Amino acid sequence: MRAIEIQEKLTLTEVPTPELKDGEVLVKVHAAGVNRGDVLQAAGHYPPPPGASEIMGLECAGEIADPGTTSREKGEKVACLLAGGGYAEFVAVPEGQLLSIPEGWTTTEAAAIVEVACTVHSNMQLAGLKQSNTLLIHGGAGGIGTFAIQYAKALGCTVAVTAGSAEKLATCQELGADILINYKEEDFAEVMKNKCDVILDIMGAKYLDQNVKALAMDGHLVIIGMQGGVKGELNIGRLLTKRGSISATALRARDLADKARIVRDTEATVWPLLNDGQIKHHLSTTLPLAEAEKAHQLLKEGAVTGKIILTVA
Amino acid sequence: MRAIEIQEKLTLTEVPTPELKDGEVLVKVHAAGVNRGDVLQAAGHYPPPPGASEIMGLECAGEIADPGTTSREKGEKVACLLAGGGYAEFVAVPEGQLLSIPEGWTTTEAAAIVEVACTVHSNMQLAGLKQSNTLLIHGGAGGIGTFAIQYAKALGCTVAVTAGSAEKLATCQELGADILINYKEEDFAEVMKNKCDVILDIMGAKYLDQNVKALAMDGHLVIIGMQGGVKGELNIGRLLTKRGSISATALRARDLADKARIVRDTEATVWPLLNDGQIKHHLSTTLPLAEAEKAHQLLKEGAVTGKIILTVA
Repeated sequence: MRAIEIQEKLTLTEVPTPELKDGEVLVKVHAAGVNRGDVLQAAGHYPPPPGASEIMGLECAGEIADPGTTSREKGEKVACLLAGGGYAEFVAVPEGQLLSIPEGWTTTEAAAIVEVACTVHSNMQLAGLKQSNTLLIHGGAGGIGTFAIQYAKALGCTVAVTAGSAEKLATCQELGADILINYKEEDFAEVMKNKCDVILDIMGAKYLDQNVKALAMDGHLVIIGMQGGVKGELNIGRLLTKRGSISATALRARDLADKARIVRDTEATVWPLLNDGQIKHHLSTTLPLAEAEKAHQLLKEGAVTGKIILTVA
Repeated sequence: MRAIEIQEKLTLTEVPTPELKDGEVLVKVHAAGVNRGDVLQAAGHYPPPPGASEIMGLECAGEIADPGTTSREKGEKVACLLAGGGYAEFVAVPEGQLLSIPEGWTTTEAAAIVEVACTVHSNMQLAGLKQSNTLLIHGGAGGIGTFAIQYAKALGCTVAVTAGSAEKLATCQELGADILINYKEEDFAEVMKNKCDVILDIMGAKYLDQNVKALAMDGHLVIIGMQGGVKGELNIGRLLTKRGSISATALRARDLADKARIVRDTEATVWPLLNDGQIKHHLSTTLPLAEAEKAHQLLKEGAVTGKIILTVA
């Protein structure tokens, strides 16, 4: 089969079709989501966990080509959370990481929602986000952000977002964001000082001190990306005054049981909101699998809002 | 009445007896626990929360002298969690912060257990400590430490402690600690690398990086003291690799409802372990109230293991 491998440039090439382990199904990929983790992996900074495919791609949707030892049916349409392997014509997926296609959604649309839904839902559970809370989302116009805004609004939260342009902030507002902060013009820590019950952060070190300033009493900062660096000064005194918490998490390295638990819980909680239209996908750009290099360039340039999807003929 | 006020030196002096607010009882103090927060307050670094007594003292035990608007009975023996005011002959206490005296315990012994029990129990709940976990306790021979060792052993945990002398480590071992680390001779982060499900820390900045190294996957660092400084470098990358969490908390500034919840929960969970002898007090030194200055000197010098209690004639 053909799959994208990391070469000087991302190139569509011929590789062996994956062999199934017990409990895995072979999925014929229709569409694969592009994530920042893929860009890090292409740069050599985010190797796959032991045993996972060396091919990039953390989510996809398609149909079951071989149910293996499971009781699934050939031809069943599925969305998949992956430890890797989505940038290809076929991928082996543990059964616990399969989700249904939301009602009325195409496989291309479904491929745009799996990773963000599982990431946001599991982290907001960890942080204990609840109705009437104030949530600050950094990078509100990105894949994570566009989903998280709708998720938090469906839960009854006040949502603040940061983004780098008026156009991106307008997108956030359309999705329901209440407080719009252009980080190039305003200090979000001043605007949101002591107000945030939960912060969903992708910047890491660069925003650490400001994020702690923005936390409310008993607030929880959840760091899921480090685009602003890895090491930062933590003011423990300020954190203690607020009885604050900081968690840093990632989905990819979780074990099979943990991923299966998150997938089941996300499907039970989030999928009804997709089915009834309370949360919509925010699919910005669709490119053929062969143009993975271009997709990564778009993501690196920050030129898109929402998700980029690779489609497989 | 007489009470301890902060002067050049801590001095027993005459002040008005507290007036009761609705829902408070007046307690005649038999014994008051000495805590590091009192030492900080005496140095001007830990002002009482708004509305609380200016007098030091975060815990005491004694008998109800005036039940106020509550249905308590005059003469009832009680232990009390306080926002302040324990270093005195009388203290006004919200009813929600009263606990019973453990069976067979004197009021002096009971005064030695309230603050550590509420602090340790509420923080271990926050961190999700459970059976078979490994808990690292810094300052294992102190008031918090001597209680936390017994608490975690009762729960079925493996307990590691740090302390600064062989004598203190022997005390920890007698209380049940499994892994003994003299921080003057060994790097605890090397000994406990990737092993700690939960860490109970009183050092703050000085230990931050080592604590993160010592965390296991999904580990939780809880900081309740900053004897090693307020600002430290946080390696977010390392924390994220472990999906780790850091919380910094304090009991004193919690609101009445929150304190009442913690007190009720601590009494329900911990008091049975005190009643049946699974957890013993570790009362090191008893001094008359008039010698509060000496008590603070002993605590500052690190010269004692366990708790120091002031008794009121």
